[in-house]
This record gives sequence, C-alpha cells and structure tokens, in this order.
Amino acid sequence: MANVAKKVSWSGRDPRDDEDERAGETTPLLNGTGPGAAGGARQVRRELPRPYPNEIPHNEKLLSLKYESLDYDNSENQLFLEEERRINHAAFRTVEIKRWVICAMIGILTGLVACFIDIVVENLAGLKYRVVKDNIDKFTEKGGLSFSLLLWATLNASVVMVGSVIVAFIEPVAAGSGIPQIKCYLNGVKIPHVVRLKTLVIKVCGVILSVVGGLAVGKEGPMIHSGAVIAAGISQGRSTSLKRDFKIFEYFRRDTEKRDFVSAGAAAGVSAAFGAPVGGVLFSLEEGASFWNQFLTWRIFFASMISTFTLNSVLSVYHGNAWDLSSPGLINFGRFDSEKMGYTIQEIPIFIFMGVVGGILGALFNALNYWLTMFRIRYIHRPCLQVIEAMLVAAVTAAVGFVMIYCSRDCQPIQGSSVAYPLQVGDQGSETLLEFVALGLAGSPAATLALLWGSPQLPLLTLSFLPFQLFCADGEYNSMATAFFNTPEKSVVNLFHDPPGSYNPMTLGMFTLMYFFLACWTYGLTVSAGVFIPSLLIGAAWGRLFGISLSYLTKGSIWADPGKYALMGAAAQLGGIVRMTLSLTVIMMEATGNVTYGFPIMLVLMTAKIVGDYFVEGLYDMHIQLQSVPFLHWEAPVTSHSLTAREVMSTPVTCLRRIERVGTVVDILSDTSSNHNGFPVVESNPNTTQVVSVVGRSLRGLVPPQVFVERANLSLVQRRLKLKDFRDAYPRFPPIQSIHVSQDERECMIDLSEFMNPSPYTVPQEASLPRVFKLFRALGLRHLVVVNNHNEVVGMVTRKDLARYRLGKEGLEELSLAQT
Amino acid sequence: MANVAKKVSWSGRDPRDDEDERAGETTPLLNGTGPGAAGGARQVRRELPRPYPNEIPHNEKLLSLKYESLDYDNSENQLFLEEERRINHAAFRTVEIKRWVICAMIGILTGLVACFIDIVVENLAGLKYRVVKDNIDKFTEKGGLSFSLLLWATLNASVVMVGSVIVAFIEPVAAGSGIPQIKCYLNGVKIPHVVRLKTLVIKVCGVILSVVGGLAVGKEGPMIHSGAVIAAGISQGRSTSLKRDFKIFEYFRRDTEKRDFVSAGAAAGVSAAFGAPVGGVLFSLEEGASFWNQFLTWRIFFASMISTFTLNSVLSVYHGNAWDLSSPGLINFGRFDSEKMGYTIQEIPIFIFMGVVGGILGALFNALNYWLTMFRIRYIHRPCLQVIEAMLVAAVTAAVGFVMIYCSRDCQPIQGSSVAYPLQVGDQGSETLLEFVALGLAGSPAATLALLWGSPQLPLLTLSFLPFQLFCADGEYNSMATAFFNTPEKSVVNLFHDPPGSYNPMTLGMFTLMYFFLACWTYGLTVSAGVFIPSLLIGAAWGRLFGISLSYLTKGSIWADPGKYALMGAAAQLGGIVRMTLSLTVIMMEATGNVTYGFPIMLVLMTAKIVGDYFVEGLYDMHIQLQSVPFLHWEAPVTSHSLTAREVMSTPVTCLRRIERVGTVVDILSDTSSNHNGFPVVESNPNTTQVVSVVGRSLRGLVPPQVFVERANLSLVQRRLKLKDFRDAYPRFPPIQSIHVSQDERECMIDLSEFMNPSPYTVPQEASLPRVFKLFRALGLRHLVVVNNHNEVVGMVTRKDLARYRLGKEGLEELSLAQT
Repeated sequence: MANVAKKVSWSGRDPRDDEDERAGETTPLLNGTGPGAAGGARQVRRELPRPYPNEIPHNEKLLSLKYESLDYDNSENQLFLEEERRINHAAFRTVEIKRWVICAMIGILTGLVACFIDIVVENLAGLKYRVVKDNIDKFTEKGGLSFSLLLWATLNASVVMVGSVIVAFIEPVAAGSGIPQIKCYLNGVKIPHVVRLKTLVIKVCGVILSVVGGLAVGKEGPMIHSGAVIAAGISQGRSTSLKRDFKIFEYFRRDTEKRDFVSAGAAAGVSAAFGAPVGGVLFSLEEGASFWNQFLTWRIFFASMISTFTLNSVLSVYHGNAWDLSSPGLINFGRFDSEKMGYTIQEIPIFIFMGVVGGILGALFNALNYWLTMFRIRYIHRPCLQVIEAMLVAAVTAAVGFVMIYCSRDCQPIQGSSVAYPLQVGDQGSETLLEFVALGLAGSPAATLALLWGSPQLPLLTLSFLPFQLFCADGEYNSMATAFFNTPEKSVVNLFHDPPGSYNPMTLGMFTLMYFFLACWTYGLTVSAGVFIPSLLIGAAWGRLFGISLSYLTKGSIWADPGKYALMGAAAQLGGIVRMTLSLTVIMMEATGNVTYGFPIMLVLMTAKIVGDYFVEGLYDMHIQLQSVPFLHWEAPVTSHSLTAREVMSTPVTCLRRIERVGTVVDILSDTSSNHNGFPVVESNPNTTQVVSVVGRSLRGLVPPQVFVERANLSLVQRRLKLKDFRDAYPRFPPIQSIHVSQDERECMIDLSEFMNPSPYTVPQEASLPRVFKLFRALGLRHLVVVNNHNEVVGMVTRKDLARYRLGKEGLEELSLAQT
Repeated sequence: MANVAKKVSWSGRDPRDDEDERAGETTPLLNGTGPGAAGGARQVRRELPRPYPNEIPHNEKLLSLKYESLDYDNSENQLFLEEERRINHAAFRTVEIKRWVICAMIGILTGLVACFIDIVVENLAGLKYRVVKDNIDKFTEKGGLSFSLLLWATLNASVVMVGSVIVAFIEPVAAGSGIPQIKCYLNGVKIPHVVRLKTLVIKVCGVILSVVGGLAVGKEGPMIHSGAVIAAGISQGRSTSLKRDFKIFEYFRRDTEKRDFVSAGAAAGVSAAFGAPVGGVLFSLEEGASFWNQFLTWRIFFASMISTFTLNSVLSVYHGNAWDLSSPGLINFGRFDSEKMGYTIQEIPIFIFMGVVGGILGALFNALNYWLTMFRIRYIHRPCLQVIEAMLVAAVTAAVGFVMIYCSRDCQPIQGSSVAYPLQVGDQGSETLLEFVALGLAGSPAATLALLWGSPQLPLLTLSFLPFQLFCADGEYNSMATAFFNTPEKSVVNLFHDPPGSYNPMTLGMFTLMYFFLACWTYGLTVSAGVFIPSLLIGAAWGRLFGISLSYLTKGSIWADPGKYALMGAAAQLGGIVRMTLSLTVIMMEATGNVTYGFPIMLVLMTAKIVGDYFVEGLYDMHIQLQSVPFLHWEAPVTSHSLTAREVMSTPVTCLRRIERVGTVVDILSDTSSNHNGFPVVESNPNTTQVVSVVGRSLRGLVPPQVFVERANLSLVQRRLKLKDFRDAYPRFPPIQSIHVSQDERECMIDLSEFMNPSPYTVPQEASLPRVFKLFRALGLRHLVVVNNHNEVVGMVTRKDLARYRLGKEGLEELSLAQT
C-alpha cells in the first residue's frame, strides 16, 4: 500500500495538502496557466516528434492524450430540456419507431455489404484465376511451372499492394479487423475517422483485396467495423463525407443515440459474418455496453437477425436456390450431427486439456505479435514502408506454401473422401474438376472455391471436399495443398468434417506451424483483414492432429472423431488469441448450428482464457494498449480503494462564470492546454472581473466548449441558439480558431445559463477510485466534477485520469501521459 | 404538460416554492415530525386493516410502502475502506476464485434440485397410479368406471390441497412461479423471505404436489426461484433458518455480492428447466441486471452450464444410459430436423400472423388473469379460502377433462403413429401398454409419462407417442385424451412432432379453449407452479390447428407441416403472455436445439410482444404491479423531463449530525415514519443541541440505520465496531426496539464519522427525473440525496419516489402511496 501511495504522490506536492489549503489558493483559474494547466505536473512532456523520424520511441506504459472522449451522458441544458418537454407521448412513439426502422436498415445494409464482399471476392478471384490458368496451360507443356508460381506470387503481392496503399495513404484507421477500434468507440473513446463513410469504402475494398491477394486473413472481422460505420451513417441521416444531409433522424445526432446504433451495427456485422445473431448481440454487449437496456438489446437483436436474414436470402438467390436459406453467414461451420459427432462425459478432461494448449498457443501468438507491433510502431511508421511490408508478406505467404507443398508430397487416394462427400459435378467429369481445382492451388485462398461456386455448372460444391492433385499421381490429391491453398473458410470446414484418415499427421503439423507464424506476421499489417478465420484454421489443424493422435493412442476408439477435436482446437486457439468469453461461445455454437456443443466449447474457451490471461492479454486489448488508448475496463483495479478522487483528479480546473466576458471565453478555448473539453460554471459575480471570489466557487453547471463556437458563429445574427444548431454541426464542431472575434465582441458578456447543464454529476473528493470509476463507467460520462463539502469545484476527473491506473504484475501501476 | 404539473403539485404547497424559502425553514429535522414526516403530505393514509376483512380494497394505481429496498451500492464507510485497503492483490484473487467456486456449487445444486423434482414427481405419480389402477381393475368388471374417475379427481384435489396448505400457511411467498418475485429482488426490492431456505423447501414440495395433483401447471418456472434461493444460500455460507454458520464466504455478505449470485442462480434455474444455458444468462440480464459486467456474465454462464450439465448427467444415469447426455433440461422440445422441417421465405408472413394471434390471445389471457387476481386480492385473501380454491381448480380440471374426453370420442387408428414413433415396449405387449396408458388418463398430467419412465421395462419411451385408448375400440386411441391427460411437457412435444393427421381439428380446438381457461384460472392460485408449459401447450395446440387448416387450404402443400406451426404457435402464445424478448427467443432456440429457427421465432415473439403490449402488460409485470411493488423499469417515462428532483423527492429529511446524542438517534430510529432507512449526516456543531445552524446543513455523508443497532449492541462492551459485526447480522438486522438503552446511555455522544459513507451520490435539485432515474437505476442505489447549490440537504429520493411515475394511456400518471 505504501508503495502505491508513493507512486501516487509523484507530483511535487502531495495532493492531500490541498485539504488544508486556504480557499484562495485553489481558486479556479479563468485562464489556463500555460501548457501544464490541465494536465498539471503530471503531464509527461515530450518533444514534438518530427514527421516520420526513423525511430518513434514507444512503450506500453503510456496513455495518449490525443484521444478525445465521447459523451454518453446527455447534457441536460435548458435547450435540451425545452425540446424534450415539448415532445409529447405520440412524438416519442414516432422516435421509437424511427429507431426500429433505422435498425432494420442497418441490418439490411450490413447484410448487403457482406454479400457484396462475398460476391466480389468470388468474381475477382475468378478473373485472377483465368489469367493464371492460361499462363499455367502454356508453361505446363514447356515444363516451367515454377515460373507460373512466381508469376502468381507477384500477382498476389500486387493485389495486396493496392489494398495496402489505399489503407496506408487514404485511411489508416481502416487497417486491421477494426474490432479494437469499435471496442474503443463503444467504450467512449473518440478514434478519429472510425465511423466515416470513407473508412467503410476503404475497409470493404481493402478486405476484398487482402483476401484476393492470398494473405492469411479472414473477411469476417472487418464486417464488424463495416456494420458499425453503416449504423453510424444511417442513424445520422446524412453523410459529411458526401456533404449530403437528408434532414431525417436529426433527433439522433448526439453521442448517446449514435452509440446505441453503432452497437447494433457491430452486432449486425458479427451476425452477417458468422450467421450468429445472438452471438452478435452478446458481442456488442460484451465489448461495448455499460448499461443494459432491454429495449436497446431487443433492437440490436432485430438488426442482427435482419442482417443474417438479408445475407442468407441474397446469397441463396445468387447461388440459384432462392428459397433455401442455407448461407446464414460468410462462414458456416457445416452441419455437426449430434448423433454422429456427439461427445461423452469422458471427453471433458480432454477438451479442457485442449483449452490449456489453446491458451498457451494463443498467448504465444499474442506475445510474438506484441513484439512485432512494437517493432512496427517504432520503425515501420511510414506509409510506404508499410506497403512494402504487406507486399513482402504476400509474397512470402505464397512462397512458403509452394515450398511446403513441394516438400511434403503427402498424397492421399481420392476415392475415400469422394464417397463421404460426393462431388456432384453435374455434366463435367470428375477429372475436369480435379484439374480445375489443382489449378486453383496457385495461392488464392478465395479463388478456388469462389470460382467453383461462381461457375453455374458446379452449384452443389458447398461444403464438399476440394482435393488438390498437385505433384500427385492421378486419382490422388495433395493434402498439404488442400490444407494450405484452399480458402481458409473452406479449409476450416474440411478439417471439421473430413472423414478420419484424410490428413497425414506430418502434413497437419507442418501446416499448423507455418500458418501460425504467417498469421501472426500478417496481423497488424496495414491492410484490412480479420484474425478470426486464421485463428480458427490454426486451431482446427492442431485440433485435428490431436484427434488423430488420440485415435492412434486409443487404437481407434469410436469416440475419437478427429473432426470434433478440430472444432475444439479451433475454439481453443481463437479463445486463446482474442479472449472473448460468452459471445464467442455463442458465436461458435451458432456457427455449428448445434446447441449440444455449447458446454464443451464453453469449457474450452474458459480454460483458454484463464491460461492465456496468465501470460499475456488478449490480442485486441493488447493492440488497444499499444495504441495508448485511454480505455476503461469493467471495473477499477481491485486494489485501488486506497486512491481517492482527490488524488486522481486533474487540478486546477479552468472554470467559467455564469455570465462571462466573450474575450475570456475565447482565450480559454484557444488555449489547447485546457483540454478537458468541459468547463464547470461557478457562481458568477459580474462586478468582480478576473478573480472569482471565495464564496462564488460553488458549482452551478457544466458547459461543453462547442457552445461557444456555435454561439460565436451566430453572434452577429443575434438569433437565439437552438438545439438544431448543435445537431447540424455534430459531430465535427469547428475549432474556435476558425472564428474571428472582434475586439468589440470580446467585451460583450455571454450568459451561459441557457447552455450549461445545471445538474452535472459530481463526486466528493473523499470518494474512492472504484466509486468514481463505477459512476463514470456506468453512466458513460466524459467529465466528472470533483467538489468539496461546500459544492465548490476542486478538480475534474476525465477518462485519462481513470484509465491511468492499471493492475500490473506487482500491484497497481500508473501509466504516464504522453501527447503521442 | 400542464396536466402533469398539476398532478405533481397535489400536496398543499407547490414544491417549487422551496427554492425561495429562507434557509431556516428547510432546516432538516432531528426528530421526525409525526406520522407524516417522511412521506410528507403525499402519504395516502389508510386505516389499519383488520386481519382478514371480508374485502380488501385494492386497485392497481397504488404503490405499497411496505417493501424495503436493497442497496446495490457499497456503503464506502471507513470500516469498509479499511478492509478493502488491507486486502492485497493475492487476496482479491482468492475472493475471485471463491466466486467461481460458489457459481459451480450453485450450478450443481440447482441441477440436483431439478433432478430431485423430476424423479420425485415420477415416483409419486407412479404410486398414485398403482392405487388407482387397483381401484379401476376392481370397478371395470362391475361397470362403475365413473366412480373410479371421481376417486381420482378427489385424490388429485387432496394432493393439491397439501401443496396449497404448505404454501398458504407456511410460506405464501413460495406461491406461483416465483419469477415476479425474483425480478423484484434483482430490481432491488426486498421481498420478505424470498430467498430463504424455508421458501425453497416449500417451493420444491409445492411444485411436486401441484404437478402430481394434475393441475395445468409446469415445473419449469419454479426452478428459477429455486436456483435463486440456492444461490443466495450458498453465497452467504450459512443458513439463518437452520442457524448454521459455516464461517465461509463472509466477504459476500452484502446486497451487492448477494445479488450477483442470485442472478447466477436464476440463470442456472432457467438452464436446468429448459436446457438453455445462454437463454438463462440472457434471462438473468434481461430481468435483473442494470450494469453489465463481463466477468459477472461469464460466471453466470458458468453456473448455467454446470447446472444443465449436472441435470443431464444425473438424469442420464438415472435413466440407465449414463454417457448419453440426452436430457439437458426438464423439458426438451425434441429434435427439429432442419431438412425435414425447414422453413422458406414465403412462410415468414404466416409466422408474423401467428405472432399477432399469439399477442391477442396472450393479452386476453393476461386480462382475464388480471380480473381474477383483483378478485383474489379482494376476496380470497384468507389462507383457508385459498386452499379451497386450489382444491376446486384441481377437481374441475379433472372433471373438465373427463367430460371433454367423454363427449369428443375422437378415435384415431393407432398404427400410423406407431410407425412414425415406434413404441419400444420391450417384453411387454403393446396391448398391456395401451391399457397401462389408458389408466394413466385419470387426470395426472405427470403421472403417465413419469410412471412409464420410472418403470424399468419401458426405458425407451422418451419422445415417443403415448396414445390413450379410452372410450375407443381396440387398435384406436382417443386423441382428446392424449392431448388432455398426458403430462403437459409430453403433450407439447407430441404436438410438435406427431406426423400430420394425428389430431382431429375439432379436438384441438376444444382442447385449446378448455386448457386456455383452466391455465388462466390456475395461474395465481396459492400453489407453486409455473405458467411456461401451459402457455406452450395452449400455443402448440392452436398452432397445430392453424397448421392443419393451412395444409387443408393449400391442399396439402409440402411446407405446411403442422409440427412447425405448433412450435411457432407455442412461441407466440408464450411470448404473448410473458412478453420476454431476447431471452425467450434464445430459450426456445436452445430448447429446439436448432439455430435456424431463431429468425422466425424472433419474428413471432416480437410481433406477439408488440401486439400484446398494445392491449395489456405482460403477466409478470402485471402481477408485480398488482402487488403494488415499487419496481423500477429500464428508463424513466419518456415524457417525464418536465419533473425535477425537487418535485419527486421526499422532504423534509431526517438528518443527523456527525457527533450525535445517542438518545436523539434512538428516538429517530424508533419513529417508524422516518422510513427511508438512510440518514444524511450534516455538518455538526456539538455546542448547539437541537437545532442545526444554518451554515451546518451541508452534507457530509450518509449512514444506514443498522449502524446504530450494531453500535448499541456493543455499547457496553466498548469494543470498536467492525465490518464483521455487520456481516454477521446481515441481512436480518434487529430492530432498534429490541435494544434497551438506559438514560445514561442516552446522554452519551456517538461519533458517526467512522460509519457514514462520506461520499454518497447526490443530485442537484434541478436535475430532471430521467437523469435522477438513470443514476439511481444504473448504480442500484437505495437512497439518493438531493442537495442545493451549497451542498445542503434538501431532500431524499428513494425507490418509491421514482417508481410512482408511470406512463399511462393518457400520459404521465402518478401512483398513490399506500401502507398495504
């Protein structure tokens, strides 16, 4: 405890001294007192980084000051209350109906975007396939097949290059899966550009190009980000990127409402990706919600259901069996028949052991990715370097695959599997199919299946087995090629459902190893791509290997079906990497379509999480931390009861008086150091000018800075400010610097009564950190005013003040604040 | 709006006047000022009711003052903080592990209780069967079969009588399904005795007797209550009923922690009842949670999974196929094969129409039950009358069934269904079976199946078809008897899975009608029983009828499988009655074991809820309201922005000074009218005696009344009060009247600094009702102190102040407060 106390009083003077200070000494400042005003002595000062230095110093114990917060608490100023009071019961019903309509639209559009990605990936990959097929046809006769493969690798790298260039140069926030960003958004951190239309476009194009480019990535994760952007866009009824305002849904133009819709969008994204509507809702709640609201949850569920249903309908029509509804998600784990693949109680310990393995492998994945990401932050921060790295990974992925296939030569006879999963090729002969497929090897994970799906002659290949003949005799197929060069989605399903004996253990082992490192290298590249499918694939591979070993050890007992273990391995690996809990269990359960697997999947995920957490954080949390985002976890660190509001708050606070001189306000706003973006309004006495008297420090309200900007915009018109003005400007309020204020105007007085929230949430300075944290987190606040016993402002708690305290290995840690 | 304002200022003086009052006039009282002190002018005064008057006046627009609140906010007094600060990181980990252990134990015990109920119902029903069989054997020869039926009805009534007597005389809170009570508990209302061991015992016995007694009830709903009691018991590590304290889990002896475990228990109950662990978690969250916490949710899920797994294992062993895991819940809807029973897009509008029907029928059910319940509250409040009513219902249920069967004579040939669901009777002949079953008709819904299950010769009857030969020729069975006299669980499954043509539409129609009224009459009787299964049964019956009609209209199109419509009808009816949303969708989805039905079930439930809500509230909410419980909904009424804290708060508030005379404290506590159970501590000035000076009204903390009781208990020992003292007394703190305070002691001074929470949550008096509501609800508060701009106490908001405002048909309504 003494240790913590020491850590806390790192500033020159002990904050506890404040209590004894005379009132005059803690007078709130009307002007910031230089750069350190808001952050005070705590602020770690750094030199401003040059653009693109060779090395950016970075460590994980920093908290960036560049992120602003969203305010999930409505500012109850007079304007707001007047409007709310004007609205009658019927009008509220209309608002409620609008919310449902928006959710339906979110679901439909998210489903359509998922369809678009799916179909475009198919067709682009088909195009690429045709180009290379012609080339291979030419070289097969001459015997220069390796040249074709080289061409293919180059082609992949080029596709990835395009995908990487648009991300790196146009919208860097579209990189990765987007899940960490959406987690942050829902948590209340404003990540710039994260829900813009431009981001959506880049994200969708980027993920298509990454997948077509043959990287070890999935297209599922980015759907969550896409859904969130769609939701943010629709709910606002306009696009600032397109400069179109449809003048609808204006009521929803504030952080609170927008967040609710973004939750629905993220859920719709999960739902479309995995055909898991309940999983989607739980994902949204697990990652984002703080306050559970029945109506909101029900709307989110509605959006999710609509989303998977839209995807299902459109893809069914596209595949020609309109009423079939067989494609609930972008990935579908295939039918797990409980009779054939049921589990018994004896297998439970085995599943738990697999969870342990998954936890360890997941932790290893995250640790490797951690070092890689640190390296990237330090050295690969120039966009061009990022593009080059992405191209390199694409080329290496193709090369590794080629070498592996060439070396392994694991040829399996084809008939066994054909019996189990008949290839209904229609009028084309089986040989044509094999040739077809063998050519598809050439490195595009999506191309093969997509092509086959896309070709009308082969409509029934879904969920069937795609063998690759490469380097094998006729009537045999190369199982390494099958595992390596199929689409990852397809490979996962194959690993789940292929009959025992389809894979050579050596092949699976090598594949797991190589794909593990490739996927680890790929995650964090400047491309749009998800980590779900690669994780599932790695897990399914070692899970199946485990199943085969088990079957070998038990002399082929009936219950050692390797497919079942592949499923558990996939769950364990994914759980070990992302550490999601309830939502992932339900997503897996819904993707398998079988409720009885719920219990073992839960056990596996729980074990993987416990084991993984022992070593290192989950991948998403790790990346959030590496970005120094002030993310608020569920609870304050357990040992933080020794800290009080007085010790964590920022002080001194820039306060305003109820009737304030315009010049003073402009000066305060222009001073970037007073960066808490909310100003307490204290008892005003218009006769005293600069110094607020002792009796006048008591809190009257809280006012956000945009008020002044909007007011200033209107100052000449002298019209009364309306809520609509804020809504029109939301969320991009112009900076105060953009407004010219004349000397005469500076001398005017502005009355803040109308704009301030007269009942901001406050805490006494004696409140413990967990108490402050709970209030802040549960209500989604942006500012929390700390007052003394006489309701006088003594400090302000913002997100960064709470996010700084973290439970490390040796107890409570405090992060440093940094401008980067 | 004017209307509302008028309604609000019903007290003599307008609360807004307070603002202008001089400080001295709002001086907090040190003594209560007579009976109206806390409730003020608002309190509706009623004469104390005589015990058991003939008629108890009651209406739904009352809010009872007899319910206390739970405090889901930790009181951060010095004792608490000192303890929390002493606990280090490792100790917190131990606490966390204990939480998991408790959840595992909750799951196991809940599962075992469910097994116990299931098995005892089987055996008791078997015993009853044997008694009656002997009787029937005797009378069949003589030709007096109707006498046997009379005997059987009497026997049923007797069994129900025992079940009703124990509930009515020993523990009335064990009546009904317990879901409304658990909802209230999780909401923060203290329902006396609701989580006591005695309640559990009565509940379990009561539900067994109700089911054995042949009422139209299910044993699923009560499982939720049972799980909650188990959770509350285990987490406290002691039983006050048994006077045993195991001295474990003492850390969890407070409302906050206990609630978390009760949530887990309720989820485990749902999980055991329906084999729906995810549905259980969602139920808990939907009904109870306010603050979503990932770790808590994950623990709840763990308990749910363990619960269904325990039930599954034990029942599998009991039924002789130990490794099979085929009984995840007390009811299992049977396997819905997506290939055979899939749905297509064209059917969506039909499902929605069924939702509309379900909503209307559900609303009708609730409306009838509303009038019935009002009647019961007014006239049937004496325990003996309640027992008589229960017996009457049991007898009528048997009689109605008999008449229906006798009149309908709907005989169906037996071979068709035997082919579809072969009766594997082992060495007993099929005729013996039929005789067996026909005898089972005699009114025990549970007896027949239970008996057959219990008899070792017939282990394979699960999910098979049980035909009743009654009044039919050999080789035929009576389909009305089948529908009416099977166990309700069994009948539901039959309606889902019987092949087309098994039921005569006339039979189904009559059955729906009669069972609807019987179930409606039964719900609210003074017996332990659930409404889930009867609702499902009614819905399945009319759903199947609907399916048959549809098949007839479309000339037997292939997609009109009546079983599918029975499922949708069941969902619609249940949704129309209970109005649960997400959780019910998931429960239904998990019970069918088929994820693809999620979308139509959601549509049906959503439609049923929207349509039903248009007419009348859900059944549980209705009963909560009829009990005048101060239940807080998710949000404040939408049109309540016009109300402020000043208008809703209770005033004047009884305040204490930091250093207070013991006599004053005792007087205040003894005065029952100061019933807000929390006292603001204001600036104290020991020199002034009775009147707190003007400068001294500012809030310093909040202190709960039990402090004084505990302090008083120790006053002679002069030992320092410890947190342990509170934990040992929790939750039954003795009343102050039980403590003798001598005149000398009355003159002592007590320092409250140590016991008060120095940082209670406060709101300014200008805060709007929705803002106050949000703070109160999100943090699970019991008291919220309203302060003015100088942090001086002006009022107190408690649960009843918020629960009083309700959105009625014509806008905002205000309920009256009543002592009953």
